[in-house]
Amino acid sequence: MKRYSVGVVGAMGAVGTEMLKILEQRDFPVGNIKPLDVKENEGKKVYFNGREVEVQVAQEGAFGDLDIALFSAGEAASCDLAPAAVSEGCIVIDNSNAFRMDSKVPLVIPEVNPEDVMWHEGIIANPNCSTIQMLVALKPLHDRYTIKRIVVSTYQAVSGSGLPGILELEEQVRAYIENRELKVKVYPHQIAFNAIPHIDTFTDNAYTKEEMKMVHETHKIFHDEKIRVSPTAVRIPVIRCHSEAINIETEKPIEAQEAKEVLSKAPSIKVIDDISANVYPLAAELKGTDEVYVGRIRQDFSVKNGLNMWVVADNLRKGAALNAVQIAETLIKYKKV
Amino acid sequence: MKRYSVGVVGAMGAVGTEMLKILEQRDFPVGNIKPLDVKENEGKKVYFNGREVEVQVAQEGAFGDLDIALFSAGEAASCDLAPAAVSEGCIVIDNSNAFRMDSKVPLVIPEVNPEDVMWHEGIIANPNCSTIQMLVALKPLHDRYTIKRIVVSTYQAVSGSGLPGILELEEQVRAYIENRELKVKVYPHQIAFNAIPHIDTFTDNAYTKEEMKMVHETHKIFHDEKIRVSPTAVRIPVIRCHSEAINIETEKPIEAQEAKEVLSKAPSIKVIDDISANVYPLAAELKGTDEVYVGRIRQDFSVKNGLNMWVVADNLRKGAALNAVQIAETLIKYKKV
Repeated sequence: MKRYSVGVVGAMGAVGTEMLKILEQRDFPVGNIKPLDVKENEGKKVYFNGREVEVQVAQEGAFGDLDIALFSAGEAASCDLAPAAVSEGCIVIDNSNAFRMDSKVPLVIPEVNPEDVMWHEGIIANPNCSTIQMLVALKPLHDRYTIKRIVVSTYQAVSGSGLPGILELEEQVRAYIENRELKVKVYPHQIAFNAIPHIDTFTDNAYTKEEMKMVHETHKIFHDEKIRVSPTAVRIPVIRCHSEAINIETEKPIEAQEAKEVLSKAPSIKVIDDISANVYPLAAELKGTDEVYVGRIRQDFSVKNGLNMWVVADNLRKGAALNAVQIAETLIKYKKV
Repeated sequence: MKRYSVGVVGAMGAVGTEMLKILEQRDFPVGNIKPLDVKENEGKKVYFNGREVEVQVAQEGAFGDLDIALFSAGEAASCDLAPAAVSEGCIVIDNSNAFRMDSKVPLVIPEVNPEDVMWHEGIIANPNCSTIQMLVALKPLHDRYTIKRIVVSTYQAVSGSGLPGILELEEQVRAYIENRELKVKVYPHQIAFNAIPHIDTFTDNAYTKEEMKMVHETHKIFHDEKIRVSPTAVRIPVIRCHSEAINIETEKPIEAQEAKEVLSKAPSIKVIDDISANVYPLAAELKGTDEVYVGRIRQDFSVKNGLNMWVVADNLRKGAALNAVQIAETLIKYKKV
């Protein structure tokens, strides 16, 4: 079996750490692993398959011995280094927003549009976390009923901002309990005991970038510019796992019980929906899971063909690291690496 | 000036405490105040206008000397005692769900349908907290543009479950920080660091009662059975103030800038919407306020005539105690007490 040299850029970050863990857990055919990070983390150790590995500096010249580099060190790092990595002969799977809407870059969710890896020119983009879990859940419904419109409100965890987000929430909560003043650094406002309708920066049309990602990425991944998406992205004081209240309107008649069966049979989806036993997906219980969890599936009585549902997934895994590793697996499957 | 004997049933609870405070703050013409609560709280003291008042037992026979009784002691207490209070000659303003959909009971938001107090037969119902803030925000838009459909996702605070909800969140957060096991009592699941898509009990159509209240109460208060409402009600770890992501579709063309002006001029609404300065309504900052705060007002590009907005209000005040006191004020204004 062929083995691959794999680099992880941002190896010390929240997503990078998950990437290393997932490469191990899924027994990805790693020949050589190369954790890369900023200069300050040079020489620090990470563990991979029980072995200590030294972190090296992510910089030009560091990619020549790699087959695949998984990038998750932010948009600036991707802009700086991904083209260099490609010119050094390595395929980049990029978790940032840098190349997602670039027409030369495929944007891939392996359960939805795996074949798009075929036309890559060196870079493949990993979609935004809130888009990934939404589209994994909606793909089987779109195939069957043709979705016309999506109205979605998100309930997003602080780990979407990496370790600094988690530390800020924990510190603010501690300050509240100890009756100290809350300090605000990562978010524009206090996140403990709050709901902030503002993720990423605002754009000219009064939506945030996070919201517009859900619009544009849906079009690109579904290869369907006609689906209309109306998003509200909100940060809430949850550590890990994003939740989404999703409302869809379809071309063809949709019925909740049948939709539930369609979802139950779809890849990477787990339907958890037994309201008589208070069972539905919950962010606090799904840390470390790989599937997209769907519950509260119910007819939308306000429109001819409509459905409401509640979708939860681990934003660091399916929303980021896992999807990136699955893209690498898809490249191998299609012999594109 | 005429003064009224006012009873507060549930005077030691989260909403009852606010009711006493609001009667003071608004200088309601109280002649005599009578705090009523369960037997266990008999003889405890509350303060009203700087004076200590003893809590008496809420029971039959306790209402004969009252003009108005504000009830907020739960549905069972209202079912038990409201009819007795009426037969003892007192007008009941009831904050529970007991009588809201009773065709003989007006359901009133003073900014929306004040004239409905005119036909009361002794009981007037205070709407559900999530309905009140939604309809205060939507009334001026409905008047101007005729709302056809509402898709709403809520982000509701634990104070909606009264003091036990607040204490449960605080205790779970403390346990998390101190690395102890979290205990679950008030909610079906851990509420700290979680989002629970389940408020009140489930009904046969797979929606919760909380969600169906938003449907039925909207019809009754707007006197319009045609408005379609698609709700998802979610509890999040916020102490006080509910937030709502509201999407509307209107008959007439609606434009965000004009809608913002319409809202700015409406009673009891404050538009806080300056995204260039990261300004929008936030639950953690609006405790103790009386208005309904609206921000993130933006065109919905997914539909012909659509608008998205973010609505926050203090669920214990405008969502409960304040609205009840305003109903009492409306009764006085219309000489119906």
